Amino acid sequence: MIDQDSPARSRLAAGPLPPSLQFNAQGRLRHLLTIEGLSGALITEILDTAESFAGMNAQAVKKVPLLRGKTVMNLFFEASTRTRTTFELAAKRLSADVLNINISTSATVKGESLLDTLRNLQAMYVDMFVVRHADSGAAHFIARHVAPHVSVLNAGDGRHAHPTQALLDMFTIRRHKGDFTRLKVAIVGDILHSRVARSQIHALNLLNTGEVRVIGPKTLLPAYVEDLGVHVFHDIRAGLRDVDVIIMLRLQKERMESGLLPSEHEFFQLWGLTEERLALAAPDCIVMHPGPANRGVEIDSRVADGPQSVILEQVSNGIAVRMAVMSTIMGGSMNQGSGA
Amino acid sequence: MIDQDSPARSRLAAGPLPPSLQFNAQGRLRHLLTIEGLSGALITEILDTAESFAGMNAQAVKKVPLLRGKTVMNLFFEASTRTRTTFELAAKRLSADVLNINISTSATVKGESLLDTLRNLQAMYVDMFVVRHADSGAAHFIARHVAPHVSVLNAGDGRHAHPTQALLDMFTIRRHKGDFTRLKVAIVGDILHSRVARSQIHALNLLNTGEVRVIGPKTLLPAYVEDLGVHVFHDIRAGLRDVDVIIMLRLQKERMESGLLPSEHEFFQLWGLTEERLALAAPDCIVMHPGPANRGVEIDSRVADGPQSVILEQVSNGIAVRMAVMSTIMGGSMNQGSGA
Amino acid sequence: MIDQDSPARSRLAAGPLPPSLQFNAQGRLRHLLTIEGLSGALITEILDTAESFAGMNAQAVKKVPLLRGKTVMNLFFEASTRTRTTFELAAKRLSADVLNINISTSATVKGESLLDTLRNLQAMYVDMFVVRHADSGAAHFIARHVAPHVSVLNAGDGRHAHPTQALLDMFTIRRHKGDFTRLKVAIVGDILHSRVARSQIHALNLLNTGEVRVIGPKTLLPAYVEDLGVHVFHDIRAGLRDVDVIIMLRLQKERMESGLLPSEHEFFQLWGLTEERLALAAPDCIVMHPGPANRGVEIDSRVADGPQSVILEQVSNGIAVRMAVMSTIMGGSMNQGSGA
Repeated sequence: MIDQDSPARSRLAAGPLPPSLQFNAQGRLRHLLTIEGLSGALITEILDTAESFAGMNAQAVKKVPLLRGKTVMNLFFEASTRTRTTFELAAKRLSADVLNINISTSATVKGESLLDTLRNLQAMYVDMFVVRHADSGAAHFIARHVAPHVSVLNAGDGRHAHPTQALLDMFTIRRHKGDFTRLKVAIVGDILHSRVARSQIHALNLLNTGEVRVIGPKTLLPAYVEDLGVHVFHDIRAGLRDVDVIIMLRLQKERMESGLLPSEHEFFQLWGLTEERLALAAPDCIVMHPGPANRGVEIDSRVADGPQSVILEQVSNGIAVRMAVMSTIMGGSMNQGSGA
Repeated sequence: MIDQDSPARSRLAAGPLPPSLQFNAQGRLRHLLTIEGLSGALITEILDTAESFAGMNAQAVKKVPLLRGKTVMNLFFEASTRTRTTFELAAKRLSADVLNINISTSATVKGESLLDTLRNLQAMYVDMFVVRHADSGAAHFIARHVAPHVSVLNAGDGRHAHPTQALLDMFTIRRHKGDFTRLKVAIVGDILHSRVARSQIHALNLLNTGEVRVIGPKTLLPAYVEDLGVHVFHDIRAGLRDVDVIIMLRLQKERMESGLLPSEHEFFQLWGLTEERLALAAPDCIVMHPGPANRGVEIDSRVADGPQSVILEQVSNGIAVRMAVMSTIMGGSMNQGSGA
Repeated sequence: MIDQDSPARSRLAAGPLPPSLQFNAQGRLRHLLTIEGLSGALITEILDTAESFAGMNAQAVKKVPLLRGKTVMNLFFEASTRTRTTFELAAKRLSADVLNINISTSATVKGESLLDTLRNLQAMYVDMFVVRHADSGAAHFIARHVAPHVSVLNAGDGRHAHPTQALLDMFTIRRHKGDFTRLKVAIVGDILHSRVARSQIHALNLLNTGEVRVIGPKTLLPAYVEDLGVHVFHDIRAGLRDVDVIIMLRLQKERMESGLLPSEHEFFQLWGLTEERLALAAPDCIVMHPGPANRGVEIDSRVADGPQSVILEQVSNGIAVRMAVMSTIMGGSMNQGSGA
């Protein structure tokens, strides 16, 4: 019942989802499953809201009562302490009650038993499920089946989407660069298997980014990637020239084992971000990575820890952006633009 | 030191426990270990309190400061994410601080080391232990040994009792049927090994239920079950005729392996609740199950998901009833009737 | 990068750490890593603060808003439910948000990846890491690398230090005995491998304790232990004579396996605290143990549960003392003395 790889991959090139799934009848954001189907105006509103939370996070009292009395349940079918922690912190700083539920996928292999679990949990008057799942489409599947009072926030599903990661990346870029329309942004590495890259490309497009480039070997680029309006480079030196933002992707080590890639060492030789290659970009270019970085594989430590790296800012911004998404969906007081 | 199966089973037919164990010197509820020894008036009071919390749970702000500054510790010696979650949510919505402690039974095989663990935990100024344990009598054992400032809430001990489940079932029946005195209630399946059934029978009796029937094979009914005033049926069609409430029990798969039962398929043929059998009951009969249901074993999916099923309402009501029990015990503001 | 056993052991006899590591530029306590380098005046202030929290813990509402909006992260590289629970409770009763992160040491064997983990976590605007680690010096290592807004609280590192345990022991002694200057205190057992003993000796010295004795076999005493100003006894009967406080240490069972010690039975014969040996001490002598006690190994059950035992009081006091340390470091309103 949950889509495996191929449907999700074909969805990348497909049109937006039915607005009714992410938006309610009044056009307000109800679930955040994917960047597709959002408007640039809504993204901008979320980033504006995140800006106020970012200021608060740096203060002594990092807590507001916006979601007091709401219940957020982290449903993690895939272990990820780091990501779960950012959602837990975001919800707690909004004064929501948070419960962490780790569900082994084995216990829910049959769609039916997953649905039984969901129905039971939502019957406890849960307001939001934050869902992480190894299968592409899992968050959509859950959103299609929850009760009207429940919202779903996709915290990463298979190779499909990771929308809050894309939003925090947009927030980070905006803080450093302001206007997107004149920016050149390069995404480097394993685009094919990256839910982060998919979501980033859609968000950059919605914000009218001047130029979006993807850089990687043919084996790690989707065949139809040009349909998304990006420029494809198979030579990293050409691709990085004059860009304002470099987004490195994490290389999943499983790719090597599956024979799709040669050794880590060779990957670094061809696609790793070094100081020498970074020098090809604009002088004030920023370097981003969704973490955790494989140092010496996709990025050199001197770059990851260097003056142009904003990798740790991305982590900080992630809390503020997740607070913004949660309060936009549950807060009831934000003035939102409607979907596509 | 902790009772194994036989003492707990004989206790089912025995008289009420010493009132002093569940009640304090002023006759107020201090521990909830079992339904035995409660009065019908106290059960009614708890259900009335739960009614107000049930209304609150459906509202936007699901939180009251009744137990602010109190500490509830979930002591789960037996893993049960679902049950633990309901107690955690109930405590959080009352504004208590909640800590989850999973204790492997192996670490506490000797009663002495269990006592050391308890004494250490209660020294941290805990107000309530919510206890789940595979051994019958574990909650009583703990209640006998805690300090005067600590209350114990039994969240299921072996085959003995699961009092909050019985209370939430009574709450669910009352919401649908009102007065108990004219009701016919049937409990179907493995009565012998079910802590839920034991607690339900006692609660139904205390509320003066018109007729309580138990339906199941001889091998899964306690020999002395008639002493509890129930009517025994070994034919499901005869037993279900004209009843107002059907409570299906979960079949523990281990029973099959132990040779007590034939196959799941044969169990369903003989004792499973189908639409055709449900039609024998009163037209407005409700169907209950403590969950998680084995679909196709004790209940057909069409019944579990059908219009007469109130299974998910039971889950919702569980939060409200657990809030009511916690606030009755710790809140200090309820006017309570005394024990038997 | 993290010190193994030998550096930590030699540090016991070394001078205080640079004040700048535990104190900020204004001389205020920023990290609590070890008792060394604190002043007696600061310890007294922390104990005074703990006194007010101890009163609160015994009341109906055990919660103050002192650390509302602060985030405490329990980083436990070594499993310890009991210790973690005391820190979690202390933080919650101060109204801080608490997150528990269990990190397997295997995932962070290289110092570099531990640092990456830390940088990521602190980027989430964490105010305090409570650190438990099997390696001596781990808390110092982390304190040297955290951002300026983050404090580190050592919850036990290898054989090196366990400062909050020593402070709660001082608190317990002070409540029973008042002035330290005329007290005779005996620490009995495996001094060599005990982080608790190290921290206790330093704290007792800073509070000008009349006489500190250590009692144990030569194989379990550090060679240079006399340099700390303690009196060494290899005969338990001589060592216990007329003392006001006896602190028993927990015997790590691994010592037996490593051949450092004979059997548990023989250890008890030579070094176990029995009623008969306790009678050699002052009549109002109190008996302490950091827990969990090995009954019949280092202490007889009749002593552990007897009228002179204050073992469970130590647990209760642990909450109050940890609240005092957390609020001293993060609260910003305490008037503190400066370090050595």
